[in-house]
Amino acid sequence: MTGSLTIAGLGPGDAALVTPEVSAALDAATDVLGYTPYVARVPARDGLTLHPSDNRMELQRAGDALRLAAEGRSVVMVSSGDPGVFAMAAAVFEALEASPQWQNLSIRVLPGVTAMLAAAARAGAPLGHDFCAINLSDNLKPWPLIEKRLRLAAEADFAIALYNPRSASRPEGFARALEILKDAGCGERTIIFAHAVTTPRERIDILPLREATVDMADMATLVIIGNSATRRVGRWVYAPRRVS
Amino acid sequence: MTGSLTIAGLGPGDAALVTPEVSAALDAATDVLGYTPYVARVPARDGLTLHPSDNRMELQRAGDALRLAAEGRSVVMVSSGDPGVFAMAAAVFEALEASPQWQNLSIRVLPGVTAMLAAAARAGAPLGHDFCAINLSDNLKPWPLIEKRLRLAAEADFAIALYNPRSASRPEGFARALEILKDAGCGERTIIFAHAVTTPRERIDILPLREATVDMADMATLVIIGNSATRRVGRWVYAPRRVS
Repeated sequence: MTGSLTIAGLGPGDAALVTPEVSAALDAATDVLGYTPYVARVPARDGLTLHPSDNRMELQRAGDALRLAAEGRSVVMVSSGDPGVFAMAAAVFEALEASPQWQNLSIRVLPGVTAMLAAAARAGAPLGHDFCAINLSDNLKPWPLIEKRLRLAAEADFAIALYNPRSASRPEGFARALEILKDAGCGERTIIFAHAVTTPRERIDILPLREATVDMADMATLVIIGNSATRRVGRWVYAPRRVS
Repeated sequence: MTGSLTIAGLGPGDAALVTPEVSAALDAATDVLGYTPYVARVPARDGLTLHPSDNRMELQRAGDALRLAAEGRSVVMVSSGDPGVFAMAAAVFEALEASPQWQNLSIRVLPGVTAMLAAAARAGAPLGHDFCAINLSDNLKPWPLIEKRLRLAAEADFAIALYNPRSASRPEGFARALEILKDAGCGERTIIFAHAVTTPRERIDILPLREATVDMADMATLVIIGNSATRRVGRWVYAPRRVS
């Protein structure tokens, strides 16, 4: 029996945003691993073993998935959004590099709709011009690097998507990020807070960055800051295609 | 009869990457507009009028879509990938801003799997850390702005996704982009050329940036340049989650 590991993105929340490719992989799986709230999105059925695990267990979860695949199981590792954007795919390849005995396993990565695309769609087209995506969590990188990237992104006049803007363990990071962006001249830019996008708890707030406050974001929020040319038309926000 | 306009992303090419939400919108449409090769991906059926149009007709196409919706039709505007990333959503909002009479129309944007996510999935997880996306076309922005963004992106040590790296009308742009990145110290970084990703003509090439040549890209190619920490394991490329 030949096992396999499929690293799949479930999209931002709504089942109508799960690609047919990912649904087919889940239908064929014997084992699904992932962070507990993501595994909870996979329907239980006979023949399928669900392996939910805690946040911050990424490397152990990746090793477990590789071991199960090596034993001949059809394993799917699920992430929210896209598995390659601040999610499980990188952890699996890190585990694979540390374990040469598994490097001939059959592995696939199946893309998904990452949160910033769903958030942008709800707001209009704020990512219609050049943009960047920055993970504000400093669990795995030094905070000064985050500050440097925010300043350079402002100087480049990128629209900026911020993942993981805030958590209980880092209450001050997002406040500092807002200050850095104001200092960099972004106070008049439009900021979008997309909370729990595509779920029943969705809420979208759009305002000038200078009026933004820290409590507008939590770990279920994706933040987008428009570039300097971003415009509003009715309830919509968009980045003009032409800039001079 | 109340019309509507849905701006939908078809994903990078494979029908298994079209979200159920977009498929449902296409099933309910009376009219589908878009660039000819994207409209060709929508199956013909009774009751559906297909309106293919040429490249560089974006604003006229957007106006046509709004007018049809105002006439009571159920209109879907299709883009490849995600409609909000270098695609039709921004053009529709630009047309909407110019035409206040249409600003109460029912409009939705439905996200899709944009090319860089599909390309990254094929290569592994090169976008697993902070990254940016730059459109190399200078049809709608000055080339010096593109150069500035490339330099700042290199300085920020972002992974870099390049959309529209090359066309017949701009043969020199990608060559200059490669030179700028080499000058900025990115010669040893890994570059990924993802040609026609998820289609039968897909081809993925992975090499050090210093060995890249202009002919490796065309308009059907999505280019990803890894960040300075990006690693290879077997046939895979990934951005480590932890950086110091």
